[in-house]
Amino acid sequence: MNPDYDVIIIGAGPAGLTAAIYCSQAKLKTLVIERSMPGGRMTLAPLIVNYPGFPDGIRGVELANLMFKQAEKYGAKIIFDEVVDVNVKGNIKKIRTKSGKEITGYAIIIATGLTARRGLIRGEKKFLGKGLSYCAVCDGPLYKGKRVALVAFTDKALEEAKYLAELVRELIFIAEDSNLTQIAEQELKYGNVRIVRGKAKSLIGDGEVKGIIVDVEGKEERFDVDGVFIAAKEVPSTEVFRKAGIEIDERGFVKVNMKQETNIPGVYACGDVTGLAFQVSVAIGQATVAALRAINYVRSLKH
Amino acid sequence: MNPDYDVIIIGAGPAGLTAAIYCSQAKLKTLVIERSMPGGRMTLAPLIVNYPGFPDGIRGVELANLMFKQAEKYGAKIIFDEVVDVNVKGNIKKIRTKSGKEITGYAIIIATGLTARRGLIRGEKKFLGKGLSYCAVCDGPLYKGKRVALVAFTDKALEEAKYLAELVRELIFIAEDSNLTQIAEQELKYGNVRIVRGKAKSLIGDGEVKGIIVDVEGKEERFDVDGVFIAAKEVPSTEVFRKAGIEIDERGFVKVNMKQETNIPGVYACGDVTGLAFQVSVAIGQATVAALRAINYVRSLKH
Repeated sequence: MNPDYDVIIIGAGPAGLTAAIYCSQAKLKTLVIERSMPGGRMTLAPLIVNYPGFPDGIRGVELANLMFKQAEKYGAKIIFDEVVDVNVKGNIKKIRTKSGKEITGYAIIIATGLTARRGLIRGEKKFLGKGLSYCAVCDGPLYKGKRVALVAFTDKALEEAKYLAELVRELIFIAEDSNLTQIAEQELKYGNVRIVRGKAKSLIGDGEVKGIIVDVEGKEERFDVDGVFIAAKEVPSTEVFRKAGIEIDERGFVKVNMKQETNIPGVYACGDVTGLAFQVSVAIGQATVAALRAINYVRSLKH
Repeated sequence: MNPDYDVIIIGAGPAGLTAAIYCSQAKLKTLVIERSMPGGRMTLAPLIVNYPGFPDGIRGVELANLMFKQAEKYGAKIIFDEVVDVNVKGNIKKIRTKSGKEITGYAIIIATGLTARRGLIRGEKKFLGKGLSYCAVCDGPLYKGKRVALVAFTDKALEEAKYLAELVRELIFIAEDSNLTQIAEQELKYGNVRIVRGKAKSLIGDGEVKGIIVDVEGKEERFDVDGVFIAAKEVPSTEVFRKAGIEIDERGFVKVNMKQETNIPGVYACGDVTGLAFQVSVAIGQATVAALRAINYVRSLKH
């Protein structure tokens, strides 16, 4: 029996969309499954200046749209759902989605990227979309002239802080990591930025965020703000693949060789989920290699 | 003593230009040396449809120009010259060029791509530019409505044949390889294409090409044509690096690991010269990794 698709691509960031472009151009029946938004983390970038071919830079959202169009143009099908189970035994691989679909394919390309680690501050769930945001570039403009806090769990927060500093009246930059606050002291030379070294504990408010409680050297301090941004640490989310028997390294990234092959024949991985270099150009390069291998593999099974 | 540059990039194809974009954006003093034309083999592509971000495709020459602009914009210096000697001993690497320049740098990124193998047919040198061309896309339009031969040393000739078949009155497709003529029989369904299995021996003419002599099953046949195109086999040209002690594999490609490092600290390679997959997207992905490693390496030497 033939499977539903020649190749199932999990994730529609730059890696997944590139794999889709190559597979569909090679006339493979191609499915892309995306959990949230096409373009992945790329969509958070206000301006990508280092993707070759765009000398004036391009907004991440726009580049994502272009890649999406290109993949669709050649016949790749893109659905929005989440993969909750993977079975890679035998020649026909199976996946099951959150909405209950069972889908089969000859090959699988894992391009799930990174996922923001959430829930480290009390009240995150309650206030999401009510004064709490994980994306300075997306929601920053709503806080023009206001007072906001940015909780930094990652270096990436520095870029977001610069972006916010230009917009808001006052920015409180909160980080527990002393390296991060030191770099922030050097890099955030804005009159309206205050740097606080401490551990963000909880969000407070009444329907909307009104403030944030921070543990500063053992004492709880309260900062009244109109909004809170969290620059979350981003980690690969590969448990579902580990359970299927695909090798995952100690940091949680999918293990691949130079051909983007995993330990399972017919299963490839590319992009941020492989942990190599978190750049769009690297993702699409790896995705191209993965797709070319998958195309060969599928053809060899069919003949 | 400080070297002339932080990083010397050899080759200005998509790999070299991408490395230049990254290195110059990181404020490294960056030199790119190109032997012939920025964009490399990419410039031969009439339309690149699989480079992510251009859903309607983009002409190779145009994409090359965009990348060139982007590299120059951030301060990379690009010179036209050929590297004839490389010395990678010690922390400061040296290169010598054909025009006699000696240039030093902390790091070298090899991105020299592939070179067409020439001189397999008698008369190639004599008739170059006089009815003989190595680039169907560049010179094909000059032969509109005429009779031409295409000598195929590589699969890539099939694309060139399709391009020419749309333009010329009659196309004689000549290949010695029986696989290639078989594929050509299947793929070149044009009324004006004739496929000849044989070995091209020599070009004849008087100032301009007038014909080509082909050995067909032991007998020499003459075909009268207005022009001859050669789809040359493309090979890495790495002798100068081998002499410098950089490891080259048995096919002539520079050996690299997943970080694009060669066996020599501070020397990286990326793109077609590494022999991985001959795709623009792969070249730029590798170049990004090479550049990020070179940036780290140069910074560590300076501090």
